[in-house]
This record gives sequence, C-alpha cells and structure tokens, in this order.
Amino acid sequence: MTQAPFLKDVAALVKFLQFRAASFDRVLQKLNVISLGNGKCSVEMKVDDDHVDQTGKLHIGLSSTLVDCISGFALMSQLPNMHVTTDISLRNFNGPKTGNEIVIDGHVNKVVDNLAFLEVKIKDKATGELLLQGTHTKYVLVN
Amino acid sequence: MTQAPFLKDVAALVKFLQFRAASFDRVLQKLNVISLGNGKCSVEMKVDDDHVDQTGKLHIGLSSTLVDCISGFALMSQLPNMHVTTDISLRNFNGPKTGNEIVIDGHVNKVVDNLAFLEVKIKDKATGELLLQGTHTKYVLVN
Amino acid sequence: MTQAPFLKDVAALVKFLQFRAASFDRVLQKLNVISLGNGKCSVEMKVDDDHVDQTGKLHIGLSSTLVDCISGFALMSQLPNMHVTTDISLRNFNGPKTGNEIVIDGHVNKVVDNLAFLEVKIKDKATGELLLQGTHTKYVLVN
Amino acid sequence: MTQAPFLKDVAALVKFLQFRAASFDRVLQKLNVISLGNGKCSVEMKVDDDHVDQTGKLHIGLSSTLVDCISGFALMSQLPNMHVTTDISLRNFNGPKTGNEIVIDGHVNKVVDNLAFLEVKIKDKATGELLLQGTHTKYVLVN
Repeated sequence: MTQAPFLKDVAALVKFLQFRAASFDRVLQKLNVISLGNGKCSVEMKVDDDHVDQTGKLHIGLSSTLVDCISGFALMSQLPNMHVTTDISLRNFNGPKTGNEIVIDGHVNKVVDNLAFLEVKIKDKATGELLLQGTHTKYVLVN
Repeated sequence: MTQAPFLKDVAALVKFLQFRAASFDRVLQKLNVISLGNGKCSVEMKVDDDHVDQTGKLHIGLSSTLVDCISGFALMSQLPNMHVTTDISLRNFNGPKTGNEIVIDGHVNKVVDNLAFLEVKIKDKATGELLLQGTHTKYVLVN
Repeated sequence: MTQAPFLKDVAALVKFLQFRAASFDRVLQKLNVISLGNGKCSVEMKVDDDHVDQTGKLHIGLSSTLVDCISGFALMSQLPNMHVTTDISLRNFNGPKTGNEIVIDGHVNKVVDNLAFLEVKIKDKATGELLLQGTHTKYVLVN
Repeated sequence: MTQAPFLKDVAALVKFLQFRAASFDRVLQKLNVISLGNGKCSVEMKVDDDHVDQTGKLHIGLSSTLVDCISGFALMSQLPNMHVTTDISLRNFNGPKTGNEIVIDGHVNKVVDNLAFLEVKIKDKATGELLLQGTHTKYVLVN
C-alpha cells in the first residue's frame, strides 16, 4: 500500500506518464524526458498556448505542477516508498512566453527520516537563465 | 498595457473563465463560482477523476493552481492593475479525494505599495475541515 | 529522549523561558505571556531598540524567531513529543517600529501523522492590523 | 531616504556590523566574514551555546536571521537602494550542534524591477554537507 512506482530510467517515466494521462498529470503530456536516475530528473518543454496565463507567460499553476511532478519523479528514482507533499513553494523570477523552450531540473536535496527535501530549477534552454525556482517537502510513508 | 480585467461580480468571473478556456485556465472549467467582490473570492468544486494524482487525491499541481487563480480573482475584484506572481506556497494538511466537494476561499490580506499579499483556504464543504492553505505574493504593475 | 516539556499554562511557559535564557531564546526575554493551552499561545511584546533593524522596524530575524517559538509553545501545550522544524516562512506586510506594542498569536492548524502544521499572526495591539504572518511545519518524533 | 549602506568589501561589512551591535544584529557578533562583493556574501560561524535551542542544535530563529542578514549583505554589495523583506523561508535538513563550524553563503539570484530574489545555503564547514537552505524576497525602494 505504501509502495510507489519506482522509476529507474527515462523509459519507465515515459510509460508512467502515458498511464497517468487521464488524471491531472495530462497537463504534462508535452514533456520531453531527458534523463532520470539517482534522485535527479531533467525534462524539456516548449511553452505552448495551453500552458500560459492571460499575459501569455507560463501559468503559475503549471509552473507549480512542474515543481511538484519533476521533483516527485526525481524522488521516485531514488526511493520506492509512497510520499505525500507537505510544503511546496515557487518563486517566479521571469516567466517564459509561448514558444520559449525551457529545461526543468529536479533533484533530491536530502532525505532525513520520513522527510524528503526536493528542489527544482526552471531555466531557459537557449540561454541557461534561471527563470523560476521551487522547493518541495514530501512526507515519506515507511510501512 | 498594465490594465487587468476588473472583475466586479460572479457573472464577470464566469465570463472571464469561459474566455480563458483555451489557456491553462481550462483546468478550472468545473469551478462553481459562489461569490466575488471587494478582494474576496469563493468557489466550490467537486473533486473529479481529472483533478487527482496517482493516489486518488487532489493533485498538488491543481491545488497550487487553485491558490494562484482564486486569490488572483480576489485581487482582480479590488484592483484594476496587472500583477505578476513573485512567491506562492501551499501546505497540504489533508488532500480531498475523488467525489469530495470542496470550498476554495481566497482573499487579499493587504496591498502595500507594489505588493499584494493574498491567502487561500481550501476546506471540505460538508465538514468545514481545513484541508490545504496557500499564500501568494503578487507584484502590482502601476504604470 | 523524544519527550518535550509539556507546557500546560502561562506559569509553565514563563518558567520554561527563564530556564532557557542562556540559549538563543534570550531574545524572547521581554515577552509578556497572555495565554497558553490546547494548541494556542498568545503573547504581547513592546518593540524595543534591541528588536529592530537598521530602518528602526522589527528585525525579520526576530520576527522569524517569534513565529518559530510562539507556534512551538502552542504545540508544546498540545503534544508532549519532541519536534523539529522542517519548513518555516514569514511574510512581512508592515513591520512595527520601536515603541509599538504587538500581539503574537500562534496556533496549531493540524497534526497529521508525524507532522504538525502551525501558524502565527503578528498584529498591532492598538489597531488589530495584521502586520506579519508566518507558517511553520514541524516533524514530531514519536518514539 | 532610500539609500542603504553600500557594502563594497569585507572591511565595510565588519564596520557595519560593529555599528549595528545595539540592534537585533548583535546576535551576529560572532560572525567571521570571509568574502563580500558583486551580490555574494560568505561568512563562517562556530555554533555556540547562545546560538542553540533546547535540543542543543542551531536555533531556527538564528538560522532565519542568518538567511535574512547574509542575503541582505549580498544585496547591499550590489545595490545602493533601501530594501524591505516581503517573503522569507527556511528549510531545515539537519541543524548543526554546539561546537560545529558552519559556512553561510548568500547570493542574489536576480533583481527584477523592484524585487530582489536572494538565496542562502548553510553548510557544515568540515564536510560541505548542506544543512539548511533559505530563500528571501526583498522589495527594493527606488526613489
């Protein structure tokens, strides 16, 4: 019951995402998974019309979803346990616009007892500029 | 250029949401707007299959989107200026499951110079139990 | 080893603070404890010269200490277990100045499994205006 | 009125700290400033009896003060404007104990219009292990 899908590589994550297309994870269907393993996950995405807000910039709701999921995938490549979010936060330095290509890098900062501390950086693919930064704390179920 | 849609009542927000259905705001199409005005916005939503994560609970990405948007609507009923998110955070006490009905209440804590401090509470409609809490800071464009 | 001091009332907290005067908690020695019990703690403080920053306003470091400690005292009135901070945050709407009297109210939002979600509001004593808001998540040691 | 002390180097910061010893900044009097300039500040500190909480670990209030101040000093080496904190947060992976030596590195992530996004990492000096992480958003006064 507390076993999460263990994601060992890019193929496993792609399969997981296809399976989840009926849930809210459908908003991630345009992700291009670059690498996954050992507590790290890197994906790329082209910002599309259905990703943006009224100003034409990446929607904060989707940005938060990227922070949530990409760091979650990173954790799922390190730990087989189920986990639930306790605290998640996002800082928006400069949101990308429709047509921009972005890189989303998530990694596990540390796992201490039942807690996993995760972090995500969203950068412009072309320039490497840091656009958004997220932190994410998850509670890991152990039994 | 720095003029945001001013939302004066429920009808104005419903119209705004219909117009935005092509953007990421489409994830909000099942919202039932209860009240809007004077820096406050209250909506209801039945948690559906396309709102949840792999555990069948409200997706953190959608929860963050609710924090972002409902507090944004509250602000849009108070100020006509454009605004961008700087910091947003969410705490998950107990996520609702598919079939649960929830109430999402957003309000403006304070506007100081160019900054608007907003807050959102997500509660179980039947019991009133506080399920998630979000805070949201926006930068208000003045010219 | 995982037993924390259980604080049942104002007298217990005042005694606890006197004992802790050698540690960093010495910065709290001018607190006036108003009430404590059942997961809630309320204290008052007059902002003094040694509480402020270079602009003469309540120092963010001391504000964070108030969020940390007052919510911690609230939790210690509800649970006898030891607990450690995982995430703490503060939003500054309008910092009080030297001479202002403030009220700091902390309460337990919820305890779920090993996690305690806490919240603190700092208000102007005279006007009731909300000046700062903090959230605090603690990990509760159970064995 | 909106002019902050511009800190150009280690000597300037040491002088600033001595001047501020009467305010809450007195808690920083045992800092050893290593480097300062171009939006970065690095200091070292030996955790002492008057830095810790009831468990003998670095007090979260002092940790938050370090996040606040060290990132503030980093900003003061880049911008001459006055600035006030809007949002500050801290994540505690593993607090150091009395006697441990720590390194506190603050830097400016980005300045966008009136907002400065800052970040602080607190590491064990001997092992380089990341112990705490903080983020800090400041509003910059421009006129």
